Amino acid sequence: MSTLFAAGHAIVNVGLTSFAQTIVDAGARVVQLDWQPPASGDRALGMQLAALINHPVVEQANQRAYAAYVEAQPNLIGVARAGEALPGFAGRMLLHAGPPIAFGEMCGPMQGAIYGALLFEGWAKDIDAARELAASGQIAFASCHQHGAVGPMAGVISPSMPVWIVENAVTGKRAFSNFNEGLGKVLRFGAHGREVLDRLRWMSGVLAPTMSAVLARHGPLALKPVIAQALHMGDECHNRNVAASSLLLKKLVPAALESKVPHSQLAEVLSFIAGNDHFFLNLSMAGCKAMLDAAHGIAGSSMVTAMARNGVRFGIRLSGTGDLWFEAPALPVNGLYFPSYGPQDAAADLGDSAITETAGLGGFAMAGSPAIVQFVGGTPAQGVANTLSMTHITLGRNNAFTLPAINFGGTPAGIDARKVLDSGIAPIINTGIAHKEAGVGQIGAGITHAPLECFAPAIAALAARVSA
Amino acid sequence: MSTLFAAGHAIVNVGLTSFAQTIVDAGARVVQLDWQPPASGDRALGMQLAALINHPVVEQANQRAYAAYVEAQPNLIGVARAGEALPGFAGRMLLHAGPPIAFGEMCGPMQGAIYGALLFEGWAKDIDAARELAASGQIAFASCHQHGAVGPMAGVISPSMPVWIVENAVTGKRAFSNFNEGLGKVLRFGAHGREVLDRLRWMSGVLAPTMSAVLARHGPLALKPVIAQALHMGDECHNRNVAASSLLLKKLVPAALESKVPHSQLAEVLSFIAGNDHFFLNLSMAGCKAMLDAAHGIAGSSMVTAMARNGVRFGIRLSGTGDLWFEAPALPVNGLYFPSYGPQDAAADLGDSAITETAGLGGFAMAGSPAIVQFVGGTPAQGVANTLSMTHITLGRNNAFTLPAINFGGTPAGIDARKVLDSGIAPIINTGIAHKEAGVGQIGAGITHAPLECFAPAIAALAARVSA
Repeated sequence: MSTLFAAGHAIVNVGLTSFAQTIVDAGARVVQLDWQPPASGDRALGMQLAALINHPVVEQANQRAYAAYVEAQPNLIGVARAGEALPGFAGRMLLHAGPPIAFGEMCGPMQGAIYGALLFEGWAKDIDAARELAASGQIAFASCHQHGAVGPMAGVISPSMPVWIVENAVTGKRAFSNFNEGLGKVLRFGAHGREVLDRLRWMSGVLAPTMSAVLARHGPLALKPVIAQALHMGDECHNRNVAASSLLLKKLVPAALESKVPHSQLAEVLSFIAGNDHFFLNLSMAGCKAMLDAAHGIAGSSMVTAMARNGVRFGIRLSGTGDLWFEAPALPVNGLYFPSYGPQDAAADLGDSAITETAGLGGFAMAGSPAIVQFVGGTPAQGVANTLSMTHITLGRNNAFTLPAINFGGTPAGIDARKVLDSGIAPIINTGIAHKEAGVGQIGAGITHAPLECFAPAIAALAARVSA
Repeated sequence: MSTLFAAGHAIVNVGLTSFAQTIVDAGARVVQLDWQPPASGDRALGMQLAALINHPVVEQANQRAYAAYVEAQPNLIGVARAGEALPGFAGRMLLHAGPPIAFGEMCGPMQGAIYGALLFEGWAKDIDAARELAASGQIAFASCHQHGAVGPMAGVISPSMPVWIVENAVTGKRAFSNFNEGLGKVLRFGAHGREVLDRLRWMSGVLAPTMSAVLARHGPLALKPVIAQALHMGDECHNRNVAASSLLLKKLVPAALESKVPHSQLAEVLSFIAGNDHFFLNLSMAGCKAMLDAAHGIAGSSMVTAMARNGVRFGIRLSGTGDLWFEAPALPVNGLYFPSYGPQDAAADLGDSAITETAGLGGFAMAGSPAIVQFVGGTPAQGVANTLSMTHITLGRNNAFTLPAINFGGTPAGIDARKVLDSGIAPIINTGIAHKEAGVGQIGAGITHAPLECFAPAIAALAARVSA
């Protein structure tokens, strides 16, 4: 024993860090290995998980689901009013980000956005009436995902708002998203003052018909090539969309000038787009939703087809468990704050934009976006490490989305809920940070994770279906 | 001795690889260190070089030169006819890339471009007349650099061609470049057929006045912020300009739509720009020339203020040796060839575009452009290594141009001819490869180096001036 523990050995501690600290306190070196038992140590769940690993039904279902995701060809084909285009979106209904949530439970920014939408629709004449109506039970609330749509942050979509129509050319199935308002006082962060409503009216009255005319002239605009090129230009297409927004503008300008839209109107619209480096975000999201919808609904598949947050709870869906949401409390976001703000001001993780990570972009593609760390924190090397760590919990590498910094390897994509629960490696998410109060806006950006607690009930539900 | 050379040692061989090969042949491992004696082993030159190292006059001059380069603020301020804007550009004169060269000596692509310029100017009515006139001695040939300009590849500028005007806001001094024609059959690769001449006429008759009106509406457009942002988006602003071209378009679109230019003309012009991912190259070059001109002409400075190639010889200028060129044969380019072409088809290194490397972009900023290796060859890691190796031969790091992949370190800039000759590390250049025959066009892209042989006479000339 005395020779075994002679000086010069390094000690590796697996799991609980408290053991490592004791060794350090005693003056020795220790390498801490981050590890936890499969299924977070839950023996019953672990047995269910073990039964699903290498299960032929699950393996084949995942192959089909992943192939459908890879083969999807999302095209931007036009613009419509949400109330006309979104399936099942009727009456006095408002959509919001994340899994379903009652009005009274919503976080500040989401409630603020609901007020703004009620004012925008003219269903309430002032803020007091909006507050009353929102809480009255006369408004139906539903999640965007349930109606084929995605929206960043509060993700509130009302019937009169314009939406992008993205169609998967392989299946004909459509996905939708609202339009990006830019930064500052915006509905998606819960602002609902006059400038916000004026902008929303301009977006529905000017921006949307202009885009509609320009897209009619352009024809279907394939989103995957834009995303692929943007990944070579430092975007990860969630928190950084500067390249994709520029490429989109470049693609649309010729069609815009060939369209019949009056010169002055084009000037307004193209200036708005040119001034908004996040303009492409909503298209990235709708494109990702279209790719993942293609993979959804395959019996037995453990592939995650949606991750979304309503600011209170984080929810995931699996391909093989239909429209069920598996939820856990939304986590805080670790990141960089704009001057004068800090963690005490922050809302929890919010928005449908984690659909980008679900599709292999965002935090999963962080290796392609070294400059994002100036916005979300960390170093470019950590960004590469984040991407590589996601290879442990995904079904494949999407070679349509290659990342130069890892020698043009494809981005890890197709989250396998089994692998998440088995490894304890949670999906990483790059995201904006909203102020917890309505209307203050974005106060920072950072990195968070999907809570592992979502994956336990998802695997249990899948296990019940597969063995049934 | 027998114990000294016991097994298990690795042998490091410094310099000549033939020694290393002998060791390998004998079955041992050897680490080859690429090294050559200072001043390429030339003892007399080495003594001159040694006298200049840490010489207070040179050190102070370099500090001034480097500061002037760093502080330069190149703004794109307008468009003009070359014959009216370029200093000393009068009569039947044509400008070309690189150091001065007689017509008879020029490489194929440059001669082809000269024919095209003679036809474009109407100085020759057909190709036979152009060939005769070019060789007749009636046309004066001069290098672009001598007249304040830079041009990629053949770099041929004739008096009626439009040029960009870039002005250093600090000094008021102007630099110029011609307009980028796009790819395919273009004058800068020596093509001179009807489509080339038609495009040149469209560029001077439509593109140039449109850009002039748009810039008048926009006001001075600062080039360094565009370059800085593009470096965060995967450009190195020599061989890859896709981000910078997109950003330029985004900046100009609002002004374009607010200008009085007719809709249909804007459609033509903006489509042309949107379709040319190299459009920004010539602006990058003129911006770099403006930055380096600020550093030029400081007595005693060993900072390189121009590197340029005429397809036969590579030439450099130092800040402290005025308008002298120091030349050596242009090197071949190692790179990737387009299908059906190979090294046997290639012209030698050609064009003024190495002004970008002289200013810390291009090969020097390769760490910022991982995707460029798909075009010039190698791996992203080699790109990082190329950037880092240039820190050994430069005066500083330009913190206006940061590179995410090296943790936002500034690009190495301000080549010190002393350091090049002392270390034997030659400046690296990313460049296009022209077919050796006129008019075939670009056949590939790759990496080459400034020949060390340029730096020997440069240091000798500087030593003579400093000691005088």
